[in-house]
Amino acid sequence: MDINISAVAEAVLKAIEKSATTEGDIPVGISNRHIHLSQEHLEILFGKGYELTSMKELSQPGQYACNELLTIVGTSLRPIENVRVLGPVRSASQVEISRTDSFLLKVKPPVRESGKIGGSAPITIIGPKGIVSLKEGCIIANRHIHMSLEDGKRFGVKDNEYVTIDAIGERKTRFFDVQVRVSDQFRLEMHLDTDDANAAGLKNCSRVSIVK
Amino acid sequence: MDINISAVAEAVLKAIEKSATTEGDIPVGISNRHIHLSQEHLEILFGKGYELTSMKELSQPGQYACNELLTIVGTSLRPIENVRVLGPVRSASQVEISRTDSFLLKVKPPVRESGKIGGSAPITIIGPKGIVSLKEGCIIANRHIHMSLEDGKRFGVKDNEYVTIDAIGERKTRFFDVQVRVSDQFRLEMHLDTDDANAAGLKNCSRVSIVK
Repeated sequence: MDINISAVAEAVLKAIEKSATTEGDIPVGISNRHIHLSQEHLEILFGKGYELTSMKELSQPGQYACNELLTIVGTSLRPIENVRVLGPVRSASQVEISRTDSFLLKVKPPVRESGKIGGSAPITIIGPKGIVSLKEGCIIANRHIHMSLEDGKRFGVKDNEYVTIDAIGERKTRFFDVQVRVSDQFRLEMHLDTDDANAAGLKNCSRVSIVK
Repeated sequence: MDINISAVAEAVLKAIEKSATTEGDIPVGISNRHIHLSQEHLEILFGKGYELTSMKELSQPGQYACNELLTIVGTSLRPIENVRVLGPVRSASQVEISRTDSFLLKVKPPVRESGKIGGSAPITIIGPKGIVSLKEGCIIANRHIHMSLEDGKRFGVKDNEYVTIDAIGERKTRFFDVQVRVSDQFRLEMHLDTDDANAAGLKNCSRVSIVK
């Protein structure tokens, strides 16, 4: 019997979305601290010719959590271990942490859209084969929503528009200035870091709503 | 020359409040994880006849941060060290943590008003002379504002009323269901835990506003 794996995955995802008990129509994806690497830095950290290995696919098509884990360290010299690498490799390395992490590390990352790392904070990444000291690349990710072209129409929002979001978790919270990213490469999901998620009491099965 | 220390302290506090750059008229006090102890538990943890020693006064009259630090541990068996005790002693011991802490400890504290610990989460406190395993007492503090009778009148709110608060930090955030506590024993201050503060990018010098 032939099984269409991606159709099954799609059905399971939809079932999970439907079973969520929180109010709202946008599923939440909580981003823990993570690292994106350039191929050059990947090879410094893991050795020449090294390639990322996928542990599991993420909700956004083509993105995956890797088996590779690294240690990050800032000016406090207190390391955070087991920070997961996300694939695929990018043109520039980037370390996304929460403000809570930033106090432990003693780094001062700006709140930024992923990829906009110009002038962001320095941080050091320690791997099994080498160390990379980024002069810039450490950010706190901005609040953002990924959505397909179809969902963009449904919600009446355009790529790069900013919206307000209500999260009715254990502590009701409104998030302002949430960037919307619309693309045929995206699947509907609001990305929050652990500070935002824990403030509001949201989980990965939670759902939130656009206020305007 | 006689110096009126409390008048000087008052003036410094007011100057600090005025120098804050964030919008809003209510100063923020960020609560890190901390412990309140009964005299009985204090003596189990530190020895018979032990008394708390004050490191510094807190903004609420009569409350102080103690020199005493303890270790807390939950079902993960991963301890959090150096958790500060706040004085004076209370009739029941209580451990206030953030949701971020709760994941590390593997405890499931409810969001509660301080003192309402019935049916809250169990947690173990480790001291230099003994250990206390609380069957209940671990909570995530609710969002709340302390204010004087005078401030209650100024803001038009009563004791135990709930208000909505806007925080214009690096990530603008609205906090719903914020309990107001009005008493002649209180000084104007909104208490947030580190998750709420870090989500919004608030510091101890930040100020917030009542929306309604």
